[in-house]
Amino acid sequence: MPSERFKRLPEEKQKKIRDACMAEYTRTTIEKASLNRMIEDAGISRGSFYTYFDSKWDVLGYLCESFINEFYECGERCLEAAQGDIWEMLDQSLNGSLALCRDQKRADFIRNIMECSSREALTFDIFNYDLDSPRAVRGRRLERAAYEACVGKSLRKMGWEEYMSFFRMAMMSIAMEIKSFHDGVPENRIRERFVRTLGILKRGAGIESGAGA
Amino acid sequence: MPSERFKRLPEEKQKKIRDACMAEYTRTTIEKASLNRMIEDAGISRGSFYTYFDSKWDVLGYLCESFINEFYECGERCLEAAQGDIWEMLDQSLNGSLALCRDQKRADFIRNIMECSSREALTFDIFNYDLDSPRAVRGRRLERAAYEACVGKSLRKMGWEEYMSFFRMAMMSIAMEIKSFHDGVPENRIRERFVRTLGILKRGAGIESGAGA
Repeated sequence: MPSERFKRLPEEKQKKIRDACMAEYTRTTIEKASLNRMIEDAGISRGSFYTYFDSKWDVLGYLCESFINEFYECGERCLEAAQGDIWEMLDQSLNGSLALCRDQKRADFIRNIMECSSREALTFDIFNYDLDSPRAVRGRRLERAAYEACVGKSLRKMGWEEYMSFFRMAMMSIAMEIKSFHDGVPENRIRERFVRTLGILKRGAGIESGAGA
Repeated sequence: MPSERFKRLPEEKQKKIRDACMAEYTRTTIEKASLNRMIEDAGISRGSFYTYFDSKWDVLGYLCESFINEFYECGERCLEAAQGDIWEMLDQSLNGSLALCRDQKRADFIRNIMECSSREALTFDIFNYDLDSPRAVRGRRLERAAYEACVGKSLRKMGWEEYMSFFRMAMMSIAMEIKSFHDGVPENRIRERFVRTLGILKRGAGIESGAGA
């Protein structure tokens, strides 16, 4: 993760460094990505780079973090727009996530990450789920906000733990559909399938469901 | 995957080879596993080994296949015992899967697989989902058998696609709980959570659910 020194840089300079590193990780595989090229494009010295990040894996963890943040931001926007309707929020979250994935640069970055297999890469931040990371904190804030906005409105009254069983399945389903999208499943098929998934989560699959039994 | 020549060996000899390879992959990390030790324990020559398998990655794919088959067998037994009650089948499948994971050897094997990161390992069979592999065929047979046994009995009438949306979530949830178990979440917590998950899948989380609206 970036040093305090990095965080104190003007936002414009931060962005230039971020963009240069992202361009390199998008251009080629994670293993082959060249630190020289990153610092050259960013217009900084190697010495400066190491006052901002520990290694090229460290900057990759930071890029993944901002990347995942985009999906959370999308979820937050959808929650706000849906005004308490969790089904609308989930549906729009899938749409927004697919839109993010349609961007070729993001798609290349995701593919490079998915194909990356070196031990160092597997231990960088994205796979080391840290409960205190900004991403984890942001994820929990979204869960909580959706609970407060939707229970009793579009979700029946339920406790936090039961809600979390529901929300986890919904999020897993979105993640699975994003993976399907990257595997080449056509978007209309993905949407149809997600509508059915939401139907199950909404009405249940039990024999008595919807019959008041 | 094993050659025809391997499949023609007496079952006892197949088992001896399988056990020797499994012991080695359980004893140490996937990268460090020694082919020499496997063939020594199995009492076969290196030459014979290569008439049965292409490489040590090939035999690992085969072991994973038999390993995953155990989970399917467990699912099949639970389906048979549940007599059309999908909720009972899923509950017992989780129990059976956790029982499999409690076995220390299996746990060590899973941990070694999860920690393995070399490029070769990532391309071996388990991660290359092949629709025609015995495992995939067996998985589809279980999906179909559960559909035929349970729709209209414990599941409301629904088409295949909708059923698959349901079944996929149930299976993903079991997989997540198995992962939690390996991450050290206590078993009683896992069971409580799974009961809530089944409740959502059965009755739904929508505001109108269970009220006949």
